[in-house]
Amino acid sequence: MDTIPPLSSPPWVKPRLSIRQILEPASIAVVGASDSRAKFGGRIMYHLVHHGFAGDLVPINRGRPEVLGRTAYATLADVPTPPEVAILAVPGETLVQNVAAAATAGVGCCVIISTGFAEASEEGAAMQAEMVAIARQSGMRIVGPNCMGLIVPHHRMPLCSSVVLDTDRLLSGSIGLISQSGALMVSVFDRASTDGIGFRHCVSLGNQADLEICDFLEVMVEDPETKAICLYVEGLKDGARFRAAAAACQAAGKPLLLVKTGRTEAGVKSARSHTASLAGSYDVFEAICRETGVVLARDPDDMVRAANILVRHPGARSPGGVGVYSTSGGGAGIASDRVTEIGLGMAVLSEATRAQLGEILLPPQADNPIDLGGRKAPDSLDITKLAADILLADPAVAYGLVVLTSMPFFAEKTRLIGEVAKASPKPCFLALTPGAAADRPRAALREVDQPYFDRFEDALRAMELVAQFDRLRAEASPMALRPAGLPAIPELPDGVATEGEVKAALAAYGVPVTRESFAATPEAAGKAAAALGFPVVLKAVSRDIAHKSDVGGVALGLRDAGAVAAAAVAMQATVAGHLPQARIDGFSVQEMIKGAAEVIIGARYDPLFGPVVLVGLGGTIVEILKDVAIAPAPVAPERALRMVESLRLAPLLQGARGMPVLDVPAIVDAVVRISWLAHDLGGRLIELEANPLLVRPVGLGLVAVDGRATLVG
Amino acid sequence: MDTIPPLSSPPWVKPRLSIRQILEPASIAVVGASDSRAKFGGRIMYHLVHHGFAGDLVPINRGRPEVLGRTAYATLADVPTPPEVAILAVPGETLVQNVAAAATAGVGCCVIISTGFAEASEEGAAMQAEMVAIARQSGMRIVGPNCMGLIVPHHRMPLCSSVVLDTDRLLSGSIGLISQSGALMVSVFDRASTDGIGFRHCVSLGNQADLEICDFLEVMVEDPETKAICLYVEGLKDGARFRAAAAACQAAGKPLLLVKTGRTEAGVKSARSHTASLAGSYDVFEAICRETGVVLARDPDDMVRAANILVRHPGARSPGGVGVYSTSGGGAGIASDRVTEIGLGMAVLSEATRAQLGEILLPPQADNPIDLGGRKAPDSLDITKLAADILLADPAVAYGLVVLTSMPFFAEKTRLIGEVAKASPKPCFLALTPGAAADRPRAALREVDQPYFDRFEDALRAMELVAQFDRLRAEASPMALRPAGLPAIPELPDGVATEGEVKAALAAYGVPVTRESFAATPEAAGKAAAALGFPVVLKAVSRDIAHKSDVGGVALGLRDAGAVAAAAVAMQATVAGHLPQARIDGFSVQEMIKGAAEVIIGARYDPLFGPVVLVGLGGTIVEILKDVAIAPAPVAPERALRMVESLRLAPLLQGARGMPVLDVPAIVDAVVRISWLAHDLGGRLIELEANPLLVRPVGLGLVAVDGRATLVG
Repeated sequence: MDTIPPLSSPPWVKPRLSIRQILEPASIAVVGASDSRAKFGGRIMYHLVHHGFAGDLVPINRGRPEVLGRTAYATLADVPTPPEVAILAVPGETLVQNVAAAATAGVGCCVIISTGFAEASEEGAAMQAEMVAIARQSGMRIVGPNCMGLIVPHHRMPLCSSVVLDTDRLLSGSIGLISQSGALMVSVFDRASTDGIGFRHCVSLGNQADLEICDFLEVMVEDPETKAICLYVEGLKDGARFRAAAAACQAAGKPLLLVKTGRTEAGVKSARSHTASLAGSYDVFEAICRETGVVLARDPDDMVRAANILVRHPGARSPGGVGVYSTSGGGAGIASDRVTEIGLGMAVLSEATRAQLGEILLPPQADNPIDLGGRKAPDSLDITKLAADILLADPAVAYGLVVLTSMPFFAEKTRLIGEVAKASPKPCFLALTPGAAADRPRAALREVDQPYFDRFEDALRAMELVAQFDRLRAEASPMALRPAGLPAIPELPDGVATEGEVKAALAAYGVPVTRESFAATPEAAGKAAAALGFPVVLKAVSRDIAHKSDVGGVALGLRDAGAVAAAAVAMQATVAGHLPQARIDGFSVQEMIKGAAEVIIGARYDPLFGPVVLVGLGGTIVEILKDVAIAPAPVAPERALRMVESLRLAPLLQGARGMPVLDVPAIVDAVVRISWLAHDLGGRLIELEANPLLVRPVGLGLVAVDGRATLVG
Repeated sequence: MDTIPPLSSPPWVKPRLSIRQILEPASIAVVGASDSRAKFGGRIMYHLVHHGFAGDLVPINRGRPEVLGRTAYATLADVPTPPEVAILAVPGETLVQNVAAAATAGVGCCVIISTGFAEASEEGAAMQAEMVAIARQSGMRIVGPNCMGLIVPHHRMPLCSSVVLDTDRLLSGSIGLISQSGALMVSVFDRASTDGIGFRHCVSLGNQADLEICDFLEVMVEDPETKAICLYVEGLKDGARFRAAAAACQAAGKPLLLVKTGRTEAGVKSARSHTASLAGSYDVFEAICRETGVVLARDPDDMVRAANILVRHPGARSPGGVGVYSTSGGGAGIASDRVTEIGLGMAVLSEATRAQLGEILLPPQADNPIDLGGRKAPDSLDITKLAADILLADPAVAYGLVVLTSMPFFAEKTRLIGEVAKASPKPCFLALTPGAAADRPRAALREVDQPYFDRFEDALRAMELVAQFDRLRAEASPMALRPAGLPAIPELPDGVATEGEVKAALAAYGVPVTRESFAATPEAAGKAAAALGFPVVLKAVSRDIAHKSDVGGVALGLRDAGAVAAAAVAMQATVAGHLPQARIDGFSVQEMIKGAAEVIIGARYDPLFGPVVLVGLGGTIVEILKDVAIAPAPVAPERALRMVESLRLAPLLQGARGMPVLDVPAIVDAVVRISWLAHDLGGRLIELEANPLLVRPVGLGLVAVDGRATLVG
């Protein structure tokens, strides 16, 4: 399951089953069923029988008339009515023939848990391709191979061999889970059960030979009983389909949370542009997720716990900070520091709230964070509840964070806080301590059905994810409208473009570029400079040079024609010294621009998600800090502004010490226009960038002084 | 315990007991002892009796002849031999008289758990001062008030009322714990017990009215049975003493770990220098800790778990990366991403290791991360052990990270991995999943006495702390030697210095500054410029201006005497427009320096820790990014170099695109010299900075073009 299988083509004939039928089939055959729980087929049978599968259950076994009290058949062909779903617990080498037999017998979908296919070897990949071909020709669907099956509690369907299903009951819930890794699905399910969190559907997909993440995601987005969706993704098969499903989920207001591995792979390598190295494939994926409101988690358990909180507190929330409430000064202090460090911010309570708290608590406890150690009145249970109610009611509090240094005798207190948290429309994160002293407080929270966290840091990470969802919901993406006056088709040649060609395309899309002219010889360059007005910049023109300044191909601040001609002669020699094979076509003479800050705006075509646009600040520092913002192209001005504002160096634009306020609207406009250029180039684009653009004080615009582009060809 | 009590003076008479005697007293009196465990005194008595306190135990109770079978006395004065330690479980209002009675009776130390003193009110602070006076006059010591006492398992001394001590036995260990917060000490103790981690001594100090953190820290540093020390600090009383104790701990090779609250308080406010806002009190504390090898944790449980790992793997380690080992592809993928994201780095295995792994595992699993899913041979238990051994033996692996998607039938496998981890000299972090399916694997690890983590993120944070310790141990601080030729006493006036005065002091300490001369009038400025050579910079001279460029007090690039005079006239008007009250003493005419990068070097005097030096890069950006390094002054050149290299923008100095390699040795030399200037100024210094220093290509040095300083006065 670590490899991304080749993009599957759509089924060739009408599928025999819908995805919903696969999730909730009327009948299941277990091929390789057995009485022995030491075997895969035996455990699957046992789990289905033990949890009382809601449909027909048909064991397939050549050797016996029945398995676990159910009539068995020798082959799938012998079953009177073809089972909708067959799970194959058979050796890998007999798998293809079993798949073929299932297709012939009229099975609607095979769930294949065997390993040794595309994830393991070329030979395995060939077998996998054979199975897919059988499926395509028949209309039978395949889940897997190399997966751990499905768990659908409300349908009483533990279609999975894992021993974690050897429990009293399957917890039903409203969270959908799709995981490429089977082991991960099973352990997430187990941990969630321990936490009292149930699922609507759990699906593991393994190699995604036929059915893939989006097939199930689309159904979960539509399913009214599914209130939040969690994904564990190693690789996506179809970026556009994922983006559309995520957007539909966002439109439905349904939280979609995701853990993606392969985040830290080295980005796409490229010698020609900064954009490619700054916008690696995970950076693009992140941008797509931000655009479609998908919450990115790093840990699968965090993801499920945050989904659980979001399901329990579904309403939209006003933005605000964290209200911290603790039974110890130490807990309150640590919590305040950490809330501030992760950037959520401590809520600043109103005068009225502080006055109310002041009636029951001593200063400084009568403020955020509340340290319940400092009480005025004797009745501590009443005060416990009252203080929590007052804190959560403050309009500046968006989230509650309760840190309990738990003692056995805190059970009643904890129960009261749990009741307040459960009733509040604001998500409240209760962190207990994992030691044995908190057993009774934990039991009290389970009784009132309020989730809690055994680690303060667990609570904090879940809170971060919930806040991430709220932030994305609040800034839902505006529609990008095509600016007036853009050309229908951008004029850029195939392959590597010259600076002049790139600037011409930028200018055609309304991005200001330097005034400049081309000169074939040093003498002509001198004359051209005189016509342009001094000082000028001289650059070598060559398709063979990606970074002119690295090879002596740029001379700045030339003040007369003689200096220009002399610089051109010297440049020929210097460039030849660095790159003997580079062909110099001539010289570009350009007006010398002064700007208060340097901006890079780039675009590239991502193989999975299409065109993206990138903006960064600060010249050389951009690459050191990787301080860039990325979004799928085209972008609306509102999004482009948010991109610029999200840069760490953005304060440079707002009049940092001694500098003027710079022309942010001009940057935003250029980002929008270059995003449309990338959109219009579509699949022809490899990468393009205007770098640097020199930005002037507000009202005075910006000018692209250099640019490069590579197109397919 | 949230307030820092006033600095206590040393005892006036010889203390009756040493700290070691307080930790392991021969006799204890419980004042307020009771048979009822509903009372503080009752619980303390019960815990001491139940755990079999190793010394004499004397209940003090006016009403009864005995308590829990021990002879009781009406008052401390009635006890035949004065008890070494008395714990006072009496109402706050009778406390002072009880303390006085204890002093009279010859008690060596009072442990005071009552609240309502300096942490609560002015009245309480007065009572606290009264108690301290009694102690000072008698030589009796005080722990607390507002603390939760001490727990010393090997002395069977649970001198604490908390119900978490109502356990079968107190786990003894080799970790020392000192906590300002009592609730935190108790809950950390409880959680550690649950994890099977024991302590040598646990001390809670509350208000530190008399005995403070360093009293106990010094003893723990000396104690050969204490192998690691954990501190929870809200505020220190004596910075120099703490620094000395931490340095002694570092010299002894004993890990010292610390959680400090109040990290995110707003830094020291100051209008005059960047240094003050960039080097807040927590930044300085962090620098002191780095200098003395103290590991900074954010969570108390992480701290204790990391200390436990360090105690179990005490040897020095070669630097290296993380070897990841998992039973699932998903686990391996998530772990690799997270290890890379937190900056520890995945170990690059040798050819030989990969070949060895290749004999038992399939590619790509036969590399780091190892995904144990891909096996060649059938005997999975042998392979489990062999693969772990091979991975940990690779020289590039400094730490093992084992991620188990735990199944009940993994118990045997888990035990084997636990045995490998326990035997390895390299710290190995085992992350199990918290679900019930891992109960048997967890039990197996407890049987082989190998610590484990119930959350992957817990393992990761503990690993970060252990790696932090190793990093600090490897770079132990070089001694700072005074450069030759420094003046004995820096010449700087009290109060605010002018730029010229600061530059003179810098020059005297060997830091290059601009050539410049003072001119009283615009005409004189023009003449001075001609003498200096054009172009020049003109600056207003005034003690009333902190940032000249903000108020039009700087003119750059003046090319002839007329331009200088005209600029001076204009400057008088502009500055007056901004700051009508500022008195302009004249003008400074300076050579105009070009540099490839701007550096700030500053110093300030921290009230707790004395002089510190700071270096940052990037002009305006320094403040936006807060990209600075801080160290206590004076610094050695090796430390100064590490400070420069630690800056995020350091690549700018190393020849970033199109820029020359800059003169890092000159920056290092300037940091060293300014650190000595700060050291020599000592308590006279408030703040001083050279900003900017313009740095030239390597070999060409740097020049301070501006500077400011404020001294006491």
